[in-house]
Amino acid sequence: MPITTVGLDADDTLWHTETIFRLTHARFVDLLGAHADAATLEARLAETEKRNLRLYGYGVKGFTLSMIETAMELTDGAVETSVIREILAAGREMLTEPVEPLPGVDLALARLSERYRLVLITKGDLLHQEQKLAASGLGDLFAAIEIVSEKDADTYRRVFARHGSGAEQAVMAGNSMRSDVLPALEAGAHGALIPYPLVWAHEAAQAPVDHPRYAELASIADLPAWVDGLGG
Amino acid sequence: MPITTVGLDADDTLWHTETIFRLTHARFVDLLGAHADAATLEARLAETEKRNLRLYGYGVKGFTLSMIETAMELTDGAVETSVIREILAAGREMLTEPVEPLPGVDLALARLSERYRLVLITKGDLLHQEQKLAASGLGDLFAAIEIVSEKDADTYRRVFARHGSGAEQAVMAGNSMRSDVLPALEAGAHGALIPYPLVWAHEAAQAPVDHPRYAELASIADLPAWVDGLGG
Repeated sequence: MPITTVGLDADDTLWHTETIFRLTHARFVDLLGAHADAATLEARLAETEKRNLRLYGYGVKGFTLSMIETAMELTDGAVETSVIREILAAGREMLTEPVEPLPGVDLALARLSERYRLVLITKGDLLHQEQKLAASGLGDLFAAIEIVSEKDADTYRRVFARHGSGAEQAVMAGNSMRSDVLPALEAGAHGALIPYPLVWAHEAAQAPVDHPRYAELASIADLPAWVDGLGG
Repeated sequence: MPITTVGLDADDTLWHTETIFRLTHARFVDLLGAHADAATLEARLAETEKRNLRLYGYGVKGFTLSMIETAMELTDGAVETSVIREILAAGREMLTEPVEPLPGVDLALARLSERYRLVLITKGDLLHQEQKLAASGLGDLFAAIEIVSEKDADTYRRVFARHGSGAEQAVMAGNSMRSDVLPALEAGAHGALIPYPLVWAHEAAQAPVDHPRYAELASIADLPAWVDGLGG
């Protein structure tokens, strides 16, 4: 069956965000350096983020709240208010950071959009993702944007039924094995991993190297040719 | 043309949220009572919320960040950290507050869902809205849930094209004239206003009393009969 639809993850597939998250982590460690060493600070922040994930979901606003909460806890409430102010500013900067497509993204998406329906499939805050898509200049290449709260097989089935001709005629491409590739394969779609150098610790998962519908690509520049070669 | 689809706003149409927002405002005023009078505190918070709307969008997480920011500004950074802790707790409580459908909602939706496709159309955080819908027990009555960043005519056209048979065969019902009724009418749909006692100040707008596709209903209990009587 011919491929009609290509789903693409957004953050760290089309543009950097892991980098700004890491930079903000580093800033957080600096700000609270008087209260604990870097490893402790990172561990406590990761703990708070994980605990709050069910409540806050993904995205910058929840991350900002988790930084503030961690600062309060670590200092037993004795945090300098200047630190809170800095954390708020860091969150706002994350939300307004310029969006720069990763190398090769523009060209790959332009080629793909000539032959396939492109759908952006991403977690996070709807407003912020729409703003990033607009700022990236890539918005016109997409037929649809789907913000989802979970990336599981049901999600991919639903999205590819709604925007395409079903998962069997779809490719999902992204930098996360666990969120982009494995559940898309389970749904019956093809899955392409496009690794990003910094992968979030929670996201690591085993590669399905023998799966007939799986590929790991060195770069998004390789995606159009791979998709063109599928069940055409 | 027969009506096929009924769009429903969520917050303050199907369940209370304005109440918990107001209670949290009152708590905020209490917490900072040593620094300014209630009117000043409310005005500054409203200012911060409005300034942050483009950055944070709607929803509890952005509101929590705006409360923290306002507390910092009002006290020129000299806010007690216990206040920040209380604000974080207030935000978490808003996110986990039990969801109770407003009177008449269960029955009205059950009746509507027998004859029409129901679509929840709402702003706010996707994860939180999904959680509220699940907690309300109303989830099974809806064919789809659409989280949108703006409620304008284009949004309603798109949503009713995607989930129904176009705006001409759709009704939008909600408590906000400006967000639920006027843009839905502009899109070609019918619009029903179901007023909620506390309406957010930004949301007030003139009623289109002479519009042929508009109705103001005393309660959601009146919605099924009104929809049944339209262009059947």
